[in-house]
Amino acid sequence: MSDVEKSRLYRITHPRSLAFWGASNNALSMGSVQLASVLGLGYEGAIYPIHPKETEVMGLKAYNSLAEVPGPVDLGVVVLPTKLVPEILEQCGKAGAHHLIIVSAGFGEIDEDGKRMQQQLIDTANRYGITFLGPNCIGVVNTYHNLNTTFYPYVAKPGFIGMASQSGSFVTQMSGYLDKFDLGFSQAFSVGNEAVVDITDCLEYLGDSPETKVIALYVEAIRRGREFFRVAKQVSKKKPIVAYYVGGSSAGKKAAQSHTGALAGSDAIYDAMFRQCGVIRAQSIEELFDFCIVLGAQPLPRGDRVAVLTHSGGPGVSAADAAERSGLRLAQFGPETVAKLREVVPHTASVTNPVDLTFSRNLNEYLQTLPAIIMPDEGVDSLFVYLIVAAQRLQQLLMEATKDQEKAEALAKGFLVGQAEALAALPGKYGKPVVAGSFLPRSEPLIQELQKRGCAVVPSPERAMSALGALTRYARMREALEAST
Amino acid sequence: MSDVEKSRLYRITHPRSLAFWGASNNALSMGSVQLASVLGLGYEGAIYPIHPKETEVMGLKAYNSLAEVPGPVDLGVVVLPTKLVPEILEQCGKAGAHHLIIVSAGFGEIDEDGKRMQQQLIDTANRYGITFLGPNCIGVVNTYHNLNTTFYPYVAKPGFIGMASQSGSFVTQMSGYLDKFDLGFSQAFSVGNEAVVDITDCLEYLGDSPETKVIALYVEAIRRGREFFRVAKQVSKKKPIVAYYVGGSSAGKKAAQSHTGALAGSDAIYDAMFRQCGVIRAQSIEELFDFCIVLGAQPLPRGDRVAVLTHSGGPGVSAADAAERSGLRLAQFGPETVAKLREVVPHTASVTNPVDLTFSRNLNEYLQTLPAIIMPDEGVDSLFVYLIVAAQRLQQLLMEATKDQEKAEALAKGFLVGQAEALAALPGKYGKPVVAGSFLPRSEPLIQELQKRGCAVVPSPERAMSALGALTRYARMREALEAST
Repeated sequence: MSDVEKSRLYRITHPRSLAFWGASNNALSMGSVQLASVLGLGYEGAIYPIHPKETEVMGLKAYNSLAEVPGPVDLGVVVLPTKLVPEILEQCGKAGAHHLIIVSAGFGEIDEDGKRMQQQLIDTANRYGITFLGPNCIGVVNTYHNLNTTFYPYVAKPGFIGMASQSGSFVTQMSGYLDKFDLGFSQAFSVGNEAVVDITDCLEYLGDSPETKVIALYVEAIRRGREFFRVAKQVSKKKPIVAYYVGGSSAGKKAAQSHTGALAGSDAIYDAMFRQCGVIRAQSIEELFDFCIVLGAQPLPRGDRVAVLTHSGGPGVSAADAAERSGLRLAQFGPETVAKLREVVPHTASVTNPVDLTFSRNLNEYLQTLPAIIMPDEGVDSLFVYLIVAAQRLQQLLMEATKDQEKAEALAKGFLVGQAEALAALPGKYGKPVVAGSFLPRSEPLIQELQKRGCAVVPSPERAMSALGALTRYARMREALEAST
Repeated sequence: MSDVEKSRLYRITHPRSLAFWGASNNALSMGSVQLASVLGLGYEGAIYPIHPKETEVMGLKAYNSLAEVPGPVDLGVVVLPTKLVPEILEQCGKAGAHHLIIVSAGFGEIDEDGKRMQQQLIDTANRYGITFLGPNCIGVVNTYHNLNTTFYPYVAKPGFIGMASQSGSFVTQMSGYLDKFDLGFSQAFSVGNEAVVDITDCLEYLGDSPETKVIALYVEAIRRGREFFRVAKQVSKKKPIVAYYVGGSSAGKKAAQSHTGALAGSDAIYDAMFRQCGVIRAQSIEELFDFCIVLGAQPLPRGDRVAVLTHSGGPGVSAADAAERSGLRLAQFGPETVAKLREVVPHTASVTNPVDLTFSRNLNEYLQTLPAIIMPDEGVDSLFVYLIVAAQRLQQLLMEATKDQEKAEALAKGFLVGQAEALAALPGKYGKPVVAGSFLPRSEPLIQELQKRGCAVVPSPERAMSALGALTRYARMREALEAST
């Protein structure tokens, strides 16, 4: 049995059967929408909708109570009015259904009455040995088990980002965002009020999850600081953790408290804690996922010396500036590299770092010839590439050359694939990270071809540099953590 | 004659006729591509291609020299090899063509020889009273004169952003980016080596430009600090200036020098200067345009107290946190506002700021009822709205209700238009800024309807807050500037 199978969260992410409270034949009730998500992602286990009156719910045979369900229940999902929840939990305990997701809200996040009811849930869970997620959460997504209990369809592919979030929105509403990057979640947890399972438990799970290469945390407040520290320090040695903490300001702290009832701490304290246990901080949701793109799929750099490759002056200068602001240094090329570059580029180009091609008659040079000269240089730890392929110009050129629309399109496609393959091969070949930055829309063919091959393409030079800086910080932290054990 | 018509740049942005050096019947040469841009945007004045051999260039009658051109020449565009440029300038001076764009590179940005040649251009210009942009620039875009001399097609609509840039890329490569926001340039200048016309001249022009509501600057180094300070201080009183400065780090400074030969100064010095003359700083290209979206079209807030409206907990908390990090405070609602909100929202909702609707049976409440309660509160200076319209859910609901695809679509469209109209009317009605933040793609129907009506919709809550913070800083700066005169 692997570590992840031993986790008490394993049956929450890998249930063989589901009991579902709160779905009905009113397709618009929250419970029905959530059951529709389960069906929508093609969950393959048994599903038992439980409804006091109906015999069929959304095309599935329904049961009036848990007692009538014919088989064992690995996971119960509860989307019922607040007051009904304690009784359901009691029933589950008695029936031996020991894993639940409690979606219902109105507990600890509301008032003293709610807090009391939440404590009652905890007591019941303890009595029966129940593990439940929530209350006031939207559950889990496990793309490798076709499981989505949330009320939003999951639209991205299975990916390598493991997410644990103190907001359901950042689980539900981000799959469309990730899809634009050809990325997706491995597993994602919405932890809600964390009555029994908290973000630290999920972090530990994701640390063991074989499908997860990088962990994203949305944090309003960490309830068990010491335990988080211990777990994060262990997990950081295996894979990167990126955290977006929003409870550090007085406004964030107050808003967090009314959201999930959690008490946040000062930004400086969290900052120091994250640093000491190897967690990389992000300052926004966009940055959280930018960092995941790069930290999840690029080799660790040996140092902070970045090479900048551009054919546009301004983006090169702003990338250089952003590099320094992100804690990186511009690499200094060895004389051999400079000599080789000079042979290839036009006289208007710059062969010191940033390498600014300015203009080239051979479109292959940019992503094929130049990186092959730069990457082997021992003074280079990582490469940034600015991307703007004038697709329109390329088409024009190929039409001029071929006078044949179909042929021109095939040639353009072949060219883009060749470029993407060349760039995608670099990190593996040289053991150094490569990050591209581009303002082009994600729908642009070159971006699509690159993403398909696992290249890191971030939506601007500044954001790309920031992510490369984060990767470099992580490499340094990880080295320190490994040395200290 | 208006101030802008008196500017020596006026004939560069509003030429009645163009002489064009460097275009040929090779459609792929740089000059030809630039002439194609001029034709592409539908420039209506006379165009005289000048070519030593051809009698026709790209379908236009060509002339072997400037002397043969039959009419007066308002503007010359020169895309020729470096060495030929001085002689052309001389010819222009003699022929009375006193405005030029010199695209050719290889001057002051390269070496001592280049510097000498550039000085020669300046001397010639002074002798004849010539005003030229460049060298080493890509010229101008004036969308209100159908003029685009750059080598990229301009794909956005005419807009209210005036741009002056020390990188041509941020003029050429950004129109596709702006188009996603339904925005565009009024006029945009690529200043290149700034031999005669510099970024300060362009700033002054844009200050007088009636189509320009906000000015974006991309700055690697300001050559005439005192003059910039004087002009910026004047312009800031009329309209906001946003500057992205990349020469402040040692890496940025070095890269800038090899890009346009300009010497940059320390970040702290620029920061202080910008602050004193009312210029708002952006830290990236994305932020530059985020700020333009908001500063160009929203009324100035009277103070720093922002109301946050959300129906998703996490985005509300992160917006609150971002508000404080952006220099804003969360507004405290008056008792009347709280009472009115409580009447409308469900019991799970929060009626203190952030207002978190959590869930609503009436989809109109969110953008119609709630803002109408919040906006009149005297403790509220500005409003942030988080946007996530479950378009899919809306369709589902309307299909359930109507059982008629066409009807459902019409109703959905009507609903989205109603929502967009409601939000768009708020700033005018209450004299307070409203900024929305959303992770939704720009193609989402609600975003499209909002953008069409001039609403400020920024791609994330954090970026929206940052832009609202910038608007608030600008309001404060402008007040101080006005008080000091």
